Amino acid sequence: MKGFQNLPTIENLITELNRLPGIGPKSATALAYHLVHLPAERLNRLAETISAIPGKILNCSICGNLTEENPCRICSDPGRDHTMICVVEKPMDVLSIERTGIYRGLYHVLGGVLSPLDGIGPAQIRIRELLERLKSAEVKEIILATNPSIEGEATASYLCDTIAPLDLGITVTRFSRGLPVGGELTYTDTETLSLALQSRKPF
Amino acid sequence: MKGFQNLPTIENLITELNRLPGIGPKSATALAYHLVHLPAERLNRLAETISAIPGKILNCSICGNLTEENPCRICSDPGRDHTMICVVEKPMDVLSIERTGIYRGLYHVLGGVLSPLDGIGPAQIRIRELLERLKSAEVKEIILATNPSIEGEATASYLCDTIAPLDLGITVTRFSRGLPVGGELTYTDTETLSLALQSRKPF
Repeated sequence: MKGFQNLPTIENLITELNRLPGIGPKSATALAYHLVHLPAERLNRLAETISAIPGKILNCSICGNLTEENPCRICSDPGRDHTMICVVEKPMDVLSIERTGIYRGLYHVLGGVLSPLDGIGPAQIRIRELLERLKSAEVKEIILATNPSIEGEATASYLCDTIAPLDLGITVTRFSRGLPVGGELTYTDTETLSLALQSRKPF
Repeated sequence: MKGFQNLPTIENLITELNRLPGIGPKSATALAYHLVHLPAERLNRLAETISAIPGKILNCSICGNLTEENPCRICSDPGRDHTMICVVEKPMDVLSIERTGIYRGLYHVLGGVLSPLDGIGPAQIRIRELLERLKSAEVKEIILATNPSIEGEATASYLCDTIAPLDLGITVTRFSRGLPVGGELTYTDTETLSLALQSRKPF
């Protein structure tokens, strides 16, 4: 990139920022020029927050969500409803649902969706772990909250077809179709998400 | 913000990222979840790049641009044309012009524009410093490259009216205005279109 010969610090910064998702060359440049004007104190706090990440974040051995202690605070909270498990694709989906403040059950993070073309079958996502949880715990309802996308729907269908024959007396539900088709759970506003959760229907 | 009780590291990160310009709560969340998956090595490099900023960046005592050595490499480069000064609002504008690779003169960063309603008059931006440079150096042309906004235009007019009576034999120019290269007529605002039409040139 031209024009940087006199500012190696800003050049490095733009290069690093530009490697992050959703930050193109122009945003990276604007961010870098903003950062160089911040007081040292704030820059150091940001740097410390970033360098504090490694080693801090693990996956909960029960639900698979990101956590800083194992099992995570949701799985080990006796105040939550342990008879409900909400199955999601990614850790960020847990955050989105938690923000609605109306779900009090547990989660299960699959870590992906079935996608045969990408070589992702049932063994590549945490389906076996889910089935083991269902067999060992007193689960009464399982909410299939995979995204309303083709892969998300296929994964929900697969899970429903797998759970039903086990004859565990578990109700399988799915968020109501208030979610926009082809959209992503993570980017759905809290109100739509609350509505979709409250009006969930048997799968 | 709800939903974070089990992830203080991610919560801190989202809070810090959300304070940066152009990064809303959703981008901050997506970025944070991306960052926690990066290898420690990359996180540490990003943190080091950020914490390396304080004390590194100064303003050039001649042109006012950001620099890591004083005077900056542009002002102290004998290969540049010292008879031309391009006057811009912000350090980022210098970068934009340098990236074109066609300007070989010097710069003068005003550090803002005249904006009486915000209490910014000629004494609040680096106009006095510019006039002193003009008097002491062999400048033949001054390019007023403030933004084509109301304040930018007013600042350019003020500078032109101030420089002309000094009788220094300096040519004062301004960037041409019109349709942006690669832009579409349909999506160009009415004012730009009117201006482009009125200042049309023989083909």
